[in-house]
Amino acid sequence: MSEEAVVVLAAVTVLGVLQQAYFSLQVIYARRKYSVSPPATAGPPEFERIFRAQANCSEYFPIFIAVLWMSGVFFSQGLSSLCGLLYLYGRLRYFHGYSEAAQRRLAPLYFSAQVLWVLIGFSVLGVFLSFCRVYLEVDLLLELGSALDLV
Amino acid sequence: MSEEAVVVLAAVTVLGVLQQAYFSLQVIYARRKYSVSPPATAGPPEFERIFRAQANCSEYFPIFIAVLWMSGVFFSQGLSSLCGLLYLYGRLRYFHGYSEAAQRRLAPLYFSAQVLWVLIGFSVLGVFLSFCRVYLEVDLLLELGSALDLV
Amino acid sequence: MSEEAVVVLAAVTVLGVLQQAYFSLQVIYARRKYSVSPPATAGPPEFERIFRAQANCSEYFPIFIAVLWMSGVFFSQGLSSLCGLLYLYGRLRYFHGYSEAAQRRLAPLYFSAQVLWVLIGFSVLGVFLSFCRVYLEVDLLLELGSALDLV
Repeated sequence: MSEEAVVVLAAVTVLGVLQQAYFSLQVIYARRKYSVSPPATAGPPEFERIFRAQANCSEYFPIFIAVLWMSGVFFSQGLSSLCGLLYLYGRLRYFHGYSEAAQRRLAPLYFSAQVLWVLIGFSVLGVFLSFCRVYLEVDLLLELGSALDLV
Repeated sequence: MSEEAVVVLAAVTVLGVLQQAYFSLQVIYARRKYSVSPPATAGPPEFERIFRAQANCSEYFPIFIAVLWMSGVFFSQGLSSLCGLLYLYGRLRYFHGYSEAAQRRLAPLYFSAQVLWVLIGFSVLGVFLSFCRVYLEVDLLLELGSALDLV
Repeated sequence: MSEEAVVVLAAVTVLGVLQQAYFSLQVIYARRKYSVSPPATAGPPEFERIFRAQANCSEYFPIFIAVLWMSGVFFSQGLSSLCGLLYLYGRLRYFHGYSEAAQRRLAPLYFSAQVLWVLIGFSVLGVFLSFCRVYLEVDLLLELGSALDLV
């Protein structure tokens, strides 16, 4: 795996980590503002929305990183990184929307879920094509190219 | 790291992501069925069991992915992928068992924990053997092979 | 990516997994001791502190692993692994401190957060230098070395 093949994925990963750090800091500020001391996680709805927004983003972070890299290594670094940036943008809007009202979390949540499904689709396709190359010694993309040339 | 050396690990990873997506959808359906709107996470026991089952699987997902890859890269891709599939099968049974009754989560939980310990064991062994190769310039598996030949 | 370049990161990763396994076992023991049966997560403060300590460590685990590897691969395996060990040590003190009193979680929490920021800094720097090499064909470290020679 060469440096060029993964450096953009690495940049998106680091950006994702910075976003998680930002969300964590928001929870710390909310704990102070609404006087909810650990280990309590229950409090006024304003606090609970911020807490749940961060918890939801944290829960999806490893899934996001896993498909970002599977899709980026086995399918396309460029397309995967672009999806990665869209996902992080969706999560930022989700976090701020949820902080304001439970209802306002929905649109960006659906958006980031859709981007995640695209990354999952790329991963499945990329790993399938790789399986064909390794175990069937068939490069389906190359075959497809030749077939299109013949048309 | 060649494509052949990791493509099966990648396939198991993508399968694990799909399983997490499936669990998340079950929580969304349960939220609707039992009328538990976010950010609330408390509700009837039927809902709480599904919520906790998904939370527990999410919590273990990054640990599973980490040992799957450490074990697969440093010890054996085949054995690790097999354990990976067993783990995901155990988690599926755990999720459905827990959805029905707290008691029914136990057998598949113990099963998947045991598989995880096997993966941890493979990781420790694989990383140890790699340390010996890199820093002591001793290939213990090769030495063991020669020793067995001499017997 | 050669074996030498990542084996120490792999060892720290496996150590991190073992630590998570240890924390999970502590929660299981605490559930028995304070009679808090799943799916409940509320109970006496002693239980809730242990539960939240483990939840917090779990939440940070994927972030830690991501920056450990980004920093280790793109910046320096040695420095990153050292920070990784310091982080895990901080988390161990955090877990035991939090188990005793909410107040006693703070010092090790700040310590491990600081180490995490160092790893994030290394990752940003490493990925930036890699971008310069790949897309601008400039090796800033080499340039810096030459500049220092000229002085």
